[in-house]
Amino acid sequence: MVVMTSEATTEELDAVVRTVESAGGSAFVSRGVHRTIVGLVGDVSHFETLNLEALPGVNNVVRISSAYKLVSRENHPETSTVKVAGVPIGPDTFTLIAGPCAVETPEQTLAAAHMAKQAGAALLRGGAYKPRTSPYAFQGLGEEGLKILAQAREETGLPIVTEVVDAQDVALVSQYADMLQIGTRNMQNFALLQAAGSAGKPVMLKRGMNATIEEWLMAAEYIAQRGNLDIVLCERGIRTFETAYRNTLDISAVPLVHSLSHLPVIVDPSHAGGRRELTVPLARAAIAVGADAVMVDLHPEPGAALCDGPQALVDVDLEELAKAVREIPPMLGRTVV
Amino acid sequence: MVVMTSEATTEELDAVVRTVESAGGSAFVSRGVHRTIVGLVGDVSHFETLNLEALPGVNNVVRISSAYKLVSRENHPETSTVKVAGVPIGPDTFTLIAGPCAVETPEQTLAAAHMAKQAGAALLRGGAYKPRTSPYAFQGLGEEGLKILAQAREETGLPIVTEVVDAQDVALVSQYADMLQIGTRNMQNFALLQAAGSAGKPVMLKRGMNATIEEWLMAAEYIAQRGNLDIVLCERGIRTFETAYRNTLDISAVPLVHSLSHLPVIVDPSHAGGRRELTVPLARAAIAVGADAVMVDLHPEPGAALCDGPQALVDVDLEELAKAVREIPPMLGRTVV
Amino acid sequence: MVVMTSEATTEELDAVVRTVESAGGSAFVSRGVHRTIVGLVGDVSHFETLNLEALPGVNNVVRISSAYKLVSRENHPETSTVKVAGVPIGPDTFTLIAGPCAVETPEQTLAAAHMAKQAGAALLRGGAYKPRTSPYAFQGLGEEGLKILAQAREETGLPIVTEVVDAQDVALVSQYADMLQIGTRNMQNFALLQAAGSAGKPVMLKRGMNATIEEWLMAAEYIAQRGNLDIVLCERGIRTFETAYRNTLDISAVPLVHSLSHLPVIVDPSHAGGRRELTVPLARAAIAVGADAVMVDLHPEPGAALCDGPQALVDVDLEELAKAVREIPPMLGRTVV
Amino acid sequence: MVVMTSEATTEELDAVVRTVESAGGSAFVSRGVHRTIVGLVGDVSHFETLNLEALPGVNNVVRISSAYKLVSRENHPETSTVKVAGVPIGPDTFTLIAGPCAVETPEQTLAAAHMAKQAGAALLRGGAYKPRTSPYAFQGLGEEGLKILAQAREETGLPIVTEVVDAQDVALVSQYADMLQIGTRNMQNFALLQAAGSAGKPVMLKRGMNATIEEWLMAAEYIAQRGNLDIVLCERGIRTFETAYRNTLDISAVPLVHSLSHLPVIVDPSHAGGRRELTVPLARAAIAVGADAVMVDLHPEPGAALCDGPQALVDVDLEELAKAVREIPPMLGRTVV
Repeated sequence: MVVMTSEATTEELDAVVRTVESAGGSAFVSRGVHRTIVGLVGDVSHFETLNLEALPGVNNVVRISSAYKLVSRENHPETSTVKVAGVPIGPDTFTLIAGPCAVETPEQTLAAAHMAKQAGAALLRGGAYKPRTSPYAFQGLGEEGLKILAQAREETGLPIVTEVVDAQDVALVSQYADMLQIGTRNMQNFALLQAAGSAGKPVMLKRGMNATIEEWLMAAEYIAQRGNLDIVLCERGIRTFETAYRNTLDISAVPLVHSLSHLPVIVDPSHAGGRRELTVPLARAAIAVGADAVMVDLHPEPGAALCDGPQALVDVDLEELAKAVREIPPMLGRTVV
Repeated sequence: MVVMTSEATTEELDAVVRTVESAGGSAFVSRGVHRTIVGLVGDVSHFETLNLEALPGVNNVVRISSAYKLVSRENHPETSTVKVAGVPIGPDTFTLIAGPCAVETPEQTLAAAHMAKQAGAALLRGGAYKPRTSPYAFQGLGEEGLKILAQAREETGLPIVTEVVDAQDVALVSQYADMLQIGTRNMQNFALLQAAGSAGKPVMLKRGMNATIEEWLMAAEYIAQRGNLDIVLCERGIRTFETAYRNTLDISAVPLVHSLSHLPVIVDPSHAGGRRELTVPLARAAIAVGADAVMVDLHPEPGAALCDGPQALVDVDLEELAKAVREIPPMLGRTVV
Repeated sequence: MVVMTSEATTEELDAVVRTVESAGGSAFVSRGVHRTIVGLVGDVSHFETLNLEALPGVNNVVRISSAYKLVSRENHPETSTVKVAGVPIGPDTFTLIAGPCAVETPEQTLAAAHMAKQAGAALLRGGAYKPRTSPYAFQGLGEEGLKILAQAREETGLPIVTEVVDAQDVALVSQYADMLQIGTRNMQNFALLQAAGSAGKPVMLKRGMNATIEEWLMAAEYIAQRGNLDIVLCERGIRTFETAYRNTLDISAVPLVHSLSHLPVIVDPSHAGGRRELTVPLARAAIAVGADAVMVDLHPEPGAALCDGPQALVDVDLEELAKAVREIPPMLGRTVV
Repeated sequence: MVVMTSEATTEELDAVVRTVESAGGSAFVSRGVHRTIVGLVGDVSHFETLNLEALPGVNNVVRISSAYKLVSRENHPETSTVKVAGVPIGPDTFTLIAGPCAVETPEQTLAAAHMAKQAGAALLRGGAYKPRTSPYAFQGLGEEGLKILAQAREETGLPIVTEVVDAQDVALVSQYADMLQIGTRNMQNFALLQAAGSAGKPVMLKRGMNATIEEWLMAAEYIAQRGNLDIVLCERGIRTFETAYRNTLDISAVPLVHSLSHLPVIVDPSHAGGRRELTVPLARAAIAVGADAVMVDLHPEPGAALCDGPQALVDVDLEELAKAVREIPPMLGRTVV
């Protein structure tokens, strides 16, 4: 919808209409007392490139329909369930995902996988490739880490969720992973989104720490365009002025994204809070607000962790978490996976 | 703790020590290989005024102990329970507060009060004085509104929580209110904080929409300094880059403030979300994260509300809310008031 | 302009039109292929209270004309010049305002006033009432401070700009001040805005550190409604995620507010940066971007300042500042006052 | 520097010291009345991986020296000058960079290059690879665009600055470009940073729109670690709550980064403001604050631009810009390149 300025001339108005029509759309003009408005009908993706705001006489352009058709609920009213090697993430179930932030050794990973299983997890998370703010921090074990994860899957039966940080690694990571994770810093790494969309595996897309919900859904649209609709959206905290925790968990994103998109929405309370004592309360909040899954960090020996130790859960927390996972989802009509 | 620059001279170091000692504190110097550090012992409130950062040779000043002694948990390890005309808000209970955003008519207020009671509320909220961003918006009924609230209390038995927006009105509002509410725009209206601290009524202090948790606790300290420790802190959403909802509910503030302060912490999901469909999910999240109370807007006829109608709950939401209030608090060992 | 949902019924549309008409406005309906839009004509201040968003069938409400008529450029195309005891702040001139953050002693204030004059300042700033985040910090000298400022005016001839923090103090402060300053924490203290608007003195309104430009202009509208259009807007930094400086100076606000409002816009680089070494570069940027005045903190002995010493300018900075004040405004066609 | 909790035991303290020593560092312990502090001496990059915050008895860890050694001013006190095919960007000069946001056709690019030259630009910018939020927006011409840029260089003599968005494209882009640009969405695309660091070309690193200054400098460190110190940092606006412009230009970053790093700092006012009428005022502010270069978008026919037309400068703006480029740098002792 194009709003003209109050001084716009008839010629300027005509130019807008012609531009829209030459792009294959149609325009209907509505003259008010002070303003004239032009409604556009047609493929919104074409209008994006027309740059109508730059035309003379145009005050502003207001988009009414969404810029993400494939992931939008408008065109797909039923909520999707994504299956990860048979494990569902969707509206009728609740799924716990747990594991170490980084894969360090076979022993640490296996111990963490057993902890995860005991806490009720149905999927194992663990990072072999780690994007790190400082070039001097531990960057992950790479393919060796993927092999360790595959062993842990063998021993525990838990399918694997693991991060991929570069388009060139997608093929390799896909050989091991049951679900590809795209991290917060890569939410707008479009080459990576497209490669992940073509890999034939479900994708977990974390929200960029400064991304609006609309940008997040447009990033998911990049994956969907490659023919892959097995996408799970993961809220993990946004950057705000508050420095008392690492990031501010935007819990409202869960019901809001559920209203805009048919994709499942999950929450990572560990990275949002950045502190162990916040994780279980935030996980409870996430379940209660209606998240389809929750993903937590745990570590058999957090004091020795090479990455994000301060936020890893230990045994005593896991009991409390397991209790919440058992008790809250049934209140909301969900079966625990 | 004062960290000196690496080039600081002995004279500069001595000047820091002398400044601290002349203010009645004591300083211990610790020389490292590259840096010298000066630890300060004494009354932190005195050091605040010394402006040590401006002294030559000083790199920066790091505060370790908190700037809010009276409300800090450090000096008061047990969690407080605040009673509002006998109704407790504290760690062993869960309290629902509900009512209309603004008092408009006796009929609307009474109808809302009955809705609140039916949903399980133990306290009635309602605004007679409304701070509004636009000078052209409805500003509240003033004393007439307070009288209407008092009638509703008479008929339903629910004690009243109501906002005061100006120090000059504190005495009048206190004649009617059981609890004074200080709103988000007034969190740093220090004259108002002090007047409310002297009024002899419990105070609900909403977090400023751009206030850090530390600033919020310092604002509470202004009230506490006047001898009033019956303070309840209310998280109501902060301002971030996200525009999909009115404000971003900072759910992590609940467990974090509980760890820093002995005061009860409650959540207002209505103002954070600004949309009816987000309120009940956010209320559930707030209960699950450990809030001591939740405060919601409701209205018998939201389409006709003079203030914040789009976020007011209606009957069908209230049943869902009442279910959450019955079921979640017992899971956390709390009795519903 | 009201955008209906795609499923809105004719009854719902009629209800919107009736509501608008019953408030004295008129509505024109424009039906598109997918959506119907209702344009509203009439007094926007009435529509504010109608709560149209809450009506069934309404998707959203888009405001096109501004919510601040008195301060808007739309209704007042020429830029205003505000005179402070004869000293102009406006489009043809450039004015330097300088002085100590807080008035501490007659000696310190007078010395600072002489520094200000030497640097080319035409107005003296100084705070007698200080709103402070911590209740333990120095809160200002009150009326004694005002008297000290008046003495400094007597000796230097510089008119005085000073802050008022409570509606009850407006009358007293107006006896001494040539211009009332309303600080960032009070930008939405509506009682104070109204009292200042009635005091018969020019008002400097600082932007709230989390206020949008639209909220800032609506706050100015509160003052203007009381019949006072002698308002100067002061950008002083906003709160963002960046913690490397106290606040982030929003330099773009200057040209943007100039395009929206006829009021003069000035910049306070001292409070934004919070560090002395940033002040002069930011002051230069402010002059170059088109600010009508710049206001800086200075102190004869910053190491001993009771408030914001680290940001106060000293002699050597003042020479650099004076050079920028002499050289840049003429490039932009402005006369230095 | 490690701050222990007030209840930390001697064993906990010893564990901290042992951990540091086992990593090859040394620790000095300083006992205060209430707190014990452990200072660390050695390679800060090792300490990063030790996770000291997770050890029992540790309250927090305060970093005093910087996490970016190669780009820090601490270890490299003189300001660097980066040469782009002979054109300097550094402390003694001022350089204007201009060109179209996106390369669209040979004609448009050449016309824009001539406009750039006439406005006084010494370098030509233009994008052949465009990262776009929406998958439906124009994504650039790829190698064909690079060839068009090379032609424009041939005809005008202006060296080329162009963006690279994927590590796999670095070799190809380097065949054409004189300087590689890394965009705001890729500031933490670590694979790309490393590839650019190895390409043997100067790199312009734009600040992530939500990156702190410290994160920006750590991203530059990734490039520097590959042996390339020809890095220019570009401030282009950060994301804040303010929606009146696309992003908030953080002008204070220029003097602050100059104080922390020896690298040149430049400003892109076009992308920050997102509107043509803000660009020239912001460019003036950038020159006045001390930027080493300014980079602007221009387009021979903005109404037809495929990308960011609303912010492109046109002829009349260019005269005003050229005037600022001629007049302000000499005031600051800089020669215009």
